[in-house]
Amino acid sequence: MARDEPYPQPPHLSDTPRYAGIPSFMRLPVFADASGLDIALAGVPWDGGTTNCPGARHGPREIRNSSSMMRRVNPANGIEPYALCRVGDVGDAPVNPVNLMDTLAKVTTFFTALVATGAVPLVAGGDHLISLPVLRAVARHGPVGLVHFDAHSDTVDRYFTDERYTHGTPFRRAVEEGLIAPERVVQIGIRGSLYGLDEFDFARDAGFRLITMDEFDELGVAATLEAIREVVGSGPVYVSFDVDGLDPVFAPGTGTPEIGGLTTREAQRLIRGLRGLDLVGGDVVEVAPPLDPSGNTALVGATLMFELLCILADAIAGRSKAGS
Amino acid sequence: MARDEPYPQPPHLSDTPRYAGIPSFMRLPVFADASGLDIALAGVPWDGGTTNCPGARHGPREIRNSSSMMRRVNPANGIEPYALCRVGDVGDAPVNPVNLMDTLAKVTTFFTALVATGAVPLVAGGDHLISLPVLRAVARHGPVGLVHFDAHSDTVDRYFTDERYTHGTPFRRAVEEGLIAPERVVQIGIRGSLYGLDEFDFARDAGFRLITMDEFDELGVAATLEAIREVVGSGPVYVSFDVDGLDPVFAPGTGTPEIGGLTTREAQRLIRGLRGLDLVGGDVVEVAPPLDPSGNTALVGATLMFELLCILADAIAGRSKAGS
Amino acid sequence: MARDEPYPQPPHLSDTPRYAGIPSFMRLPVFADASGLDIALAGVPWDGGTTNCPGARHGPREIRNSSSMMRRVNPANGIEPYALCRVGDVGDAPVNPVNLMDTLAKVTTFFTALVATGAVPLVAGGDHLISLPVLRAVARHGPVGLVHFDAHSDTVDRYFTDERYTHGTPFRRAVEEGLIAPERVVQIGIRGSLYGLDEFDFARDAGFRLITMDEFDELGVAATLEAIREVVGSGPVYVSFDVDGLDPVFAPGTGTPEIGGLTTREAQRLIRGLRGLDLVGGDVVEVAPPLDPSGNTALVGATLMFELLCILADAIAGRSKAGS
Amino acid sequence: MARDEPYPQPPHLSDTPRYAGIPSFMRLPVFADASGLDIALAGVPWDGGTTNCPGARHGPREIRNSSSMMRRVNPANGIEPYALCRVGDVGDAPVNPVNLMDTLAKVTTFFTALVATGAVPLVAGGDHLISLPVLRAVARHGPVGLVHFDAHSDTVDRYFTDERYTHGTPFRRAVEEGLIAPERVVQIGIRGSLYGLDEFDFARDAGFRLITMDEFDELGVAATLEAIREVVGSGPVYVSFDVDGLDPVFAPGTGTPEIGGLTTREAQRLIRGLRGLDLVGGDVVEVAPPLDPSGNTALVGATLMFELLCILADAIAGRSKAGS
Amino acid sequence: MARDEPYPQPPHLSDTPRYAGIPSFMRLPVFADASGLDIALAGVPWDGGTTNCPGARHGPREIRNSSSMMRRVNPANGIEPYALCRVGDVGDAPVNPVNLMDTLAKVTTFFTALVATGAVPLVAGGDHLISLPVLRAVARHGPVGLVHFDAHSDTVDRYFTDERYTHGTPFRRAVEEGLIAPERVVQIGIRGSLYGLDEFDFARDAGFRLITMDEFDELGVAATLEAIREVVGSGPVYVSFDVDGLDPVFAPGTGTPEIGGLTTREAQRLIRGLRGLDLVGGDVVEVAPPLDPSGNTALVGATLMFELLCILADAIAGRSKAGS
Amino acid sequence: MARDEPYPQPPHLSDTPRYAGIPSFMRLPVFADASGLDIALAGVPWDGGTTNCPGARHGPREIRNSSSMMRRVNPANGIEPYALCRVGDVGDAPVNPVNLMDTLAKVTTFFTALVATGAVPLVAGGDHLISLPVLRAVARHGPVGLVHFDAHSDTVDRYFTDERYTHGTPFRRAVEEGLIAPERVVQIGIRGSLYGLDEFDFARDAGFRLITMDEFDELGVAATLEAIREVVGSGPVYVSFDVDGLDPVFAPGTGTPEIGGLTTREAQRLIRGLRGLDLVGGDVVEVAPPLDPSGNTALVGATLMFELLCILADAIAGRSKAGS
Repeated sequence: MARDEPYPQPPHLSDTPRYAGIPSFMRLPVFADASGLDIALAGVPWDGGTTNCPGARHGPREIRNSSSMMRRVNPANGIEPYALCRVGDVGDAPVNPVNLMDTLAKVTTFFTALVATGAVPLVAGGDHLISLPVLRAVARHGPVGLVHFDAHSDTVDRYFTDERYTHGTPFRRAVEEGLIAPERVVQIGIRGSLYGLDEFDFARDAGFRLITMDEFDELGVAATLEAIREVVGSGPVYVSFDVDGLDPVFAPGTGTPEIGGLTTREAQRLIRGLRGLDLVGGDVVEVAPPLDPSGNTALVGATLMFELLCILADAIAGRSKAGS
Repeated sequence: MARDEPYPQPPHLSDTPRYAGIPSFMRLPVFADASGLDIALAGVPWDGGTTNCPGARHGPREIRNSSSMMRRVNPANGIEPYALCRVGDVGDAPVNPVNLMDTLAKVTTFFTALVATGAVPLVAGGDHLISLPVLRAVARHGPVGLVHFDAHSDTVDRYFTDERYTHGTPFRRAVEEGLIAPERVVQIGIRGSLYGLDEFDFARDAGFRLITMDEFDELGVAATLEAIREVVGSGPVYVSFDVDGLDPVFAPGTGTPEIGGLTTREAQRLIRGLRGLDLVGGDVVEVAPPLDPSGNTALVGATLMFELLCILADAIAGRSKAGS
Repeated sequence: MARDEPYPQPPHLSDTPRYAGIPSFMRLPVFADASGLDIALAGVPWDGGTTNCPGARHGPREIRNSSSMMRRVNPANGIEPYALCRVGDVGDAPVNPVNLMDTLAKVTTFFTALVATGAVPLVAGGDHLISLPVLRAVARHGPVGLVHFDAHSDTVDRYFTDERYTHGTPFRRAVEEGLIAPERVVQIGIRGSLYGLDEFDFARDAGFRLITMDEFDELGVAATLEAIREVVGSGPVYVSFDVDGLDPVFAPGTGTPEIGGLTTREAQRLIRGLRGLDLVGGDVVEVAPPLDPSGNTALVGATLMFELLCILADAIAGRSKAGS
Repeated sequence: MARDEPYPQPPHLSDTPRYAGIPSFMRLPVFADASGLDIALAGVPWDGGTTNCPGARHGPREIRNSSSMMRRVNPANGIEPYALCRVGDVGDAPVNPVNLMDTLAKVTTFFTALVATGAVPLVAGGDHLISLPVLRAVARHGPVGLVHFDAHSDTVDRYFTDERYTHGTPFRRAVEEGLIAPERVVQIGIRGSLYGLDEFDFARDAGFRLITMDEFDELGVAATLEAIREVVGSGPVYVSFDVDGLDPVFAPGTGTPEIGGLTTREAQRLIRGLRGLDLVGGDVVEVAPPLDPSGNTALVGATLMFELLCILADAIAGRSKAGS
Repeated sequence: MARDEPYPQPPHLSDTPRYAGIPSFMRLPVFADASGLDIALAGVPWDGGTTNCPGARHGPREIRNSSSMMRRVNPANGIEPYALCRVGDVGDAPVNPVNLMDTLAKVTTFFTALVATGAVPLVAGGDHLISLPVLRAVARHGPVGLVHFDAHSDTVDRYFTDERYTHGTPFRRAVEEGLIAPERVVQIGIRGSLYGLDEFDFARDAGFRLITMDEFDELGVAATLEAIREVVGSGPVYVSFDVDGLDPVFAPGTGTPEIGGLTTREAQRLIRGLRGLDLVGGDVVEVAPPLDPSGNTALVGATLMFELLCILADAIAGRSKAGS
Repeated sequence: MARDEPYPQPPHLSDTPRYAGIPSFMRLPVFADASGLDIALAGVPWDGGTTNCPGARHGPREIRNSSSMMRRVNPANGIEPYALCRVGDVGDAPVNPVNLMDTLAKVTTFFTALVATGAVPLVAGGDHLISLPVLRAVARHGPVGLVHFDAHSDTVDRYFTDERYTHGTPFRRAVEEGLIAPERVVQIGIRGSLYGLDEFDFARDAGFRLITMDEFDELGVAATLEAIREVVGSGPVYVSFDVDGLDPVFAPGTGTPEIGGLTTREAQRLIRGLRGLDLVGGDVVEVAPPLDPSGNTALVGATLMFELLCILADAIAGRSKAGS
């Protein structure tokens, strides 16, 4: 879009019912590319890194569909993202459902171009491996911090003998590729049985801060937020939200559910508490619509994207003001 | 029913399984009208005021179906409603699925006649617009107080250019019609994105007390109950429970879900905490069975009706004792 | 679109998987209006005329979603619609979910403007009442013939005392408004219990040809097609396909299902058999996604739209050649 | 009901939408007993004879729910059952979900009393074992003929070592108890794998006529009807319709599905073809709502009950006329 | 298995995806009997004691299916059950779906033999009546203590006039048969409407400690655990977990749901807090897959079995060390 | 198994209900490998070749689950497969969900070893690409004939620019690898829109006989069988059944459904009609349980496997007799 056009807005309730029309993210205009946008909403319809139940390839469509429920402002923190930033839907990254390495390459290219326009990406997955190519684009000036909500640490080395790229490995690869600064990584919601007690050794040795559900139960939201802020500090930060960080009753539509997770109330308060960080991108991943009979997972995914959008817009507006 | 007959009772477990038989509310007898009853359970099978996903017209049937699970007494507060009051199912109000104004007129007439018998209405919706005609009947001696559980304030002025009657407007209309005393209105569970930060201006200017989920998270159940009691005081009070006040995992079967809502445990404790108010009616609305694959929303609706029934029966028995 | 641009095409399998991207009808480009198009695909997301189970307002979105499965050519009759005609998605007609008469006016205006561009409308409902405003636009030069697939004749006079506009009345109104030539109307698939044996009197007295399922069972596809051709003759013809004309196992997601209907194999052969008629528009209505757990109804709706698109494109190309 | 009251009728479309109100069978009045009725519609909410997936105990409620779709007359054969006969819903037979023999006794008593009033029973199961106690009542003057639609012959002797009463044994027991005349029994739709090729020996030795799906595929509807009429002749006949006689796509909600069964179109034509037989009762069994996500099985069950009701009413009216 | 073989282990992630293969409990080897095992995982596929919605007979299969998600160690408490004990799947107890007393006898025999090998049973139901025959085997040396999670006390005397054995009676029968020491019984999660306030008299008079949800809301997890430990003391203890002790959003697939129950996070912390008790067996019951559209109930059942397995293995290893 | 042991049999109804126990194919014993077996039932839990909706990786588990419904003999043709052959479940082939070429290699190795024992494979997929490695094993002595039921010809050359191995390419690769004799290939059920009319050129040029649904509608079952027999003649033949050859109402749980397909009645008669061919293996593919809310697709898959098993057993017994 041209930088001097009015900021894109979702339609108002006086115009049309929310369920009507072709579903773009947040009912925003669709753009051929990100140029001129401050925040680019994009999908990655791919689940080729999935080791258990597939279906996250259908995430972007259903998150778009449910995102029609999102109106314009967030009364919980007063942020009006479309007043602060130019936001648009730039469609889906190109993918190849039968070729993992080709997809990683294509998605890396797509987000590299997107970030090159100056836009910040907010992404709907797809399985969690898609965070890796997004991080490659976002971390072009150096490793970023990471706030990572998930049941799993996703730092396994290899699956099925010798597979280095699956949805269980992205953050190990991201460390190896210098995309994230390990001492600025915090993982919240970790739980579930393991193959061995050494499964978190890489993450802990690298310097990640793991906040398991057990620890979260003790800390509560406020102290968890303090811990997060302490870890990520004042540098650039990416937020990755795997919906299996939530309890599966809130997000049944996901491929590797673990009971005993976060509630959406906790998740919303945690995301809102990230306001003020120097945010440079984010994603919501592992929404698998075929496993979501009531559609709640897609609604949760869309709402968490909106929550992330609000704090991203606030951060960008803050940087812009600081820069001016 | 004749006032000297034995009080109606649901069947006992020694007689019949609960899933058997034709499903009336609470497996109570069905009456042609409310005369002789202390509490009349009624349905309003209509969703013509719905602006998003329809389906609440099927609420009364499925709430009746699920209400077979309700036995006779509530051990949480020791109330035995059928020992205190004559309670019966009076069927559904007449509705017109293709004519909004005709339906409002018909439902107003139905509840006016019902209230004229001296019975107190406890209503299963239907969408939230149906609270308006019920309030017209209940407030015949003057405006009443309102305890309103909902994600939304339902005080919008107009939708779609010029529509004054939708499920997003009933409590604005109720103020304008003098049915509720705005300074005695409290709304609990409010949340979700808005079209503008001024959306609550009418409610707040009119004197409503809004307890958003954020505030509720800080207050907790006990302080919220104190706040409610302070607002509604000792006059007559109506309770309206929109199931989207609950988190959608507890009530997925509803047309405008917002994540991050009340749990049923909180809701039950909040309703029980209203015991002692001068209750004059209530409703449970926005149960939309086609959107409820597991049936839990209907079960929640039926159980909240039972919780409301218990405190209504207690209030009526108290007034009766006070009056005698 | 400009008339000298290349004809719009859905993406090829070498480019992108079919499930990816924002779902327009047939994955065609979206246009702000119909100018320059030969065939305009449009939705009417509205079910305010529904007398039983609602949900058809969500039809256009889910038909669009499923229509991604449609490729480019129809091997059953060799028609390549996108080679013959300029086809595009023009979005949804404006609707008002709480006001029936306002919606009829808005939809009439929308299709009048669409038809004025010279484009032929192919419409996804919505409930069956939406055929009425489409016919008002299509029949601007005089009454048209009608091939109508349905379990119901939809020629009731009034519902609920005095309602003249519901999804059970459109073709009676269309006769009264002079939009369809009754002696050129044929209804196929009629069945199900009635309120009285006189319910078809209007249709038969007006001169409609009713082919009940009993008669269809005797005739078979070929003789039915002969009967249809005989009725509609050589003048302009509109095709309206209510998915409840199909047996509910093929289309469970519909509001007034009747068992014992057409199979999709029969329906496809019947539609293909209409090739050569002077077709001027068509619709597929009553797809109600909330009642469609497997999604098959939306897939059926999308496929029947594609079948109609093929014969419409063939008719338009034929007229164009005849005219040149 | 009193014999001089007007015949009960379902409400008309001018009065109320079909989905509204408390669901009795066909939206008919509910009676405490069958006295005064010509045809008594009753449920048997019990599945204690089920050897595979349970759930048929919920059949009567969901068939009642779906039966609201049934209007007043059957245009396929012109029968208006409520003009010919006094028809009412007499509720559910008493059952004991944890005691098979007690339930058989209770259900036998219930139908014996029902038949003693002169009413003809039309029953919604429940699993197929419930046909046995109904037949005990119906056959009080001697063995009756049987038209039996089913995938299974239900003439096994014993299950699980020594169980003589299961839903796989009722018609063997009925022969032994002298309730059905084996040479006047015809079974249609038989198919599916067996434990041994001798499984039908009892039925064939007793003189049953088995029409397997293979044979039905050859015969077609008309010749099958001839075969049925030849077998059952002119004496009293009971019709038992197990919905697993249908293909499971038409009736997925059943406990022992077998693919490759009847379509509903075939079933409706077969039932209508029984017109003129000396019918003395009927049932529709094995509708298991928890296994029926789309609700089609209950709709099929309700519609087949309506089809049976029409031919029963015709038979009764014919006897009555003959007798007068 | 032979006592000198390596301890059975589920496959590792380097070998095979978790969703692959024939689903035994925890993907452990299947054994013809329990000899040589320390802990025997067994199913009881039976719901003949169910008074409301059936389906729990399918519990063992679906719990096995979901249990593939369980890996090898529990990071929450560091327990590696397969390093501590020989654990295997011994299949399902024999059952008779149409004969309650025969099933009780068969299941009693099965577990008596199992316990005679020295193995400790961990059982997947089936309805709650199946705890009775398991307790008969487990309590062979005298009454045991009981930690019982449930919405219901399951101490009714008789149902349906005279039925002493249903899923609402097992713990009354267990007291009468001397299988549990009433003063060492604690029930957690009790809630829901009752037929009378005297319904808990038996349990309380016998000396059970009832912790209702109301009390639990006050106590929290830690104080509840203290209360549990105080009640059961140092003797042998059995743990029975009815999934309806959980809120139905966590376990919708169950036959007698009551809203307002435990969360899985609370349940997991409560089970983990039982570590150190002298555990002699356990069960997870009332998982009814046909009522579980998202499959979460089976996943919850499998995970709670794994949590119980961990503390059982720890107890057995402790006794073994103490004994050595 | 040892060749002198009794032939494996599924349990009898006198022993155990069919829904009980750990689900192997047909409730047959599980063997570590195929040695000693005549027919080896195996799963390939993999869908990495899927270009549209995934989920077929879960096919083997759910087909096993549903196959418990299969008893011992097929009354339609009198074949008792377990009397004729040694049949067993040999588990799942090893797969790698994130690596296509590795999976093809592993599955090829698995079936090569299986076939080397002398057993004939009957396989449950998995997506259709898995037929390729099975054919590599089966065709070790030269190209085989192929009877292929499918909506699609599966002879595309490349997808997504350059992908030669997807579920849309196996039979082109099979021709190229010399696994199938193109003039002995017949494809039944072909239909649905295409990217171009040249899409079948490869198949037709190679000599495949394509029987589209249009042609099938004209031919009927008997003439189709004649055509099949003519094509495949007397040499070795493999049968591959993609469930999307069926209409999606019979098999909604599949990733690329096309309406207007075969009924199961037609499919069963077609498979039975292959009796007498020199069958050397078969498969049932593309059952995707996450897309199958009613479970019918898995039941259909299991039943078609049983139908294939019967004719395979008959062929093997015939060869054995001929050979002796």
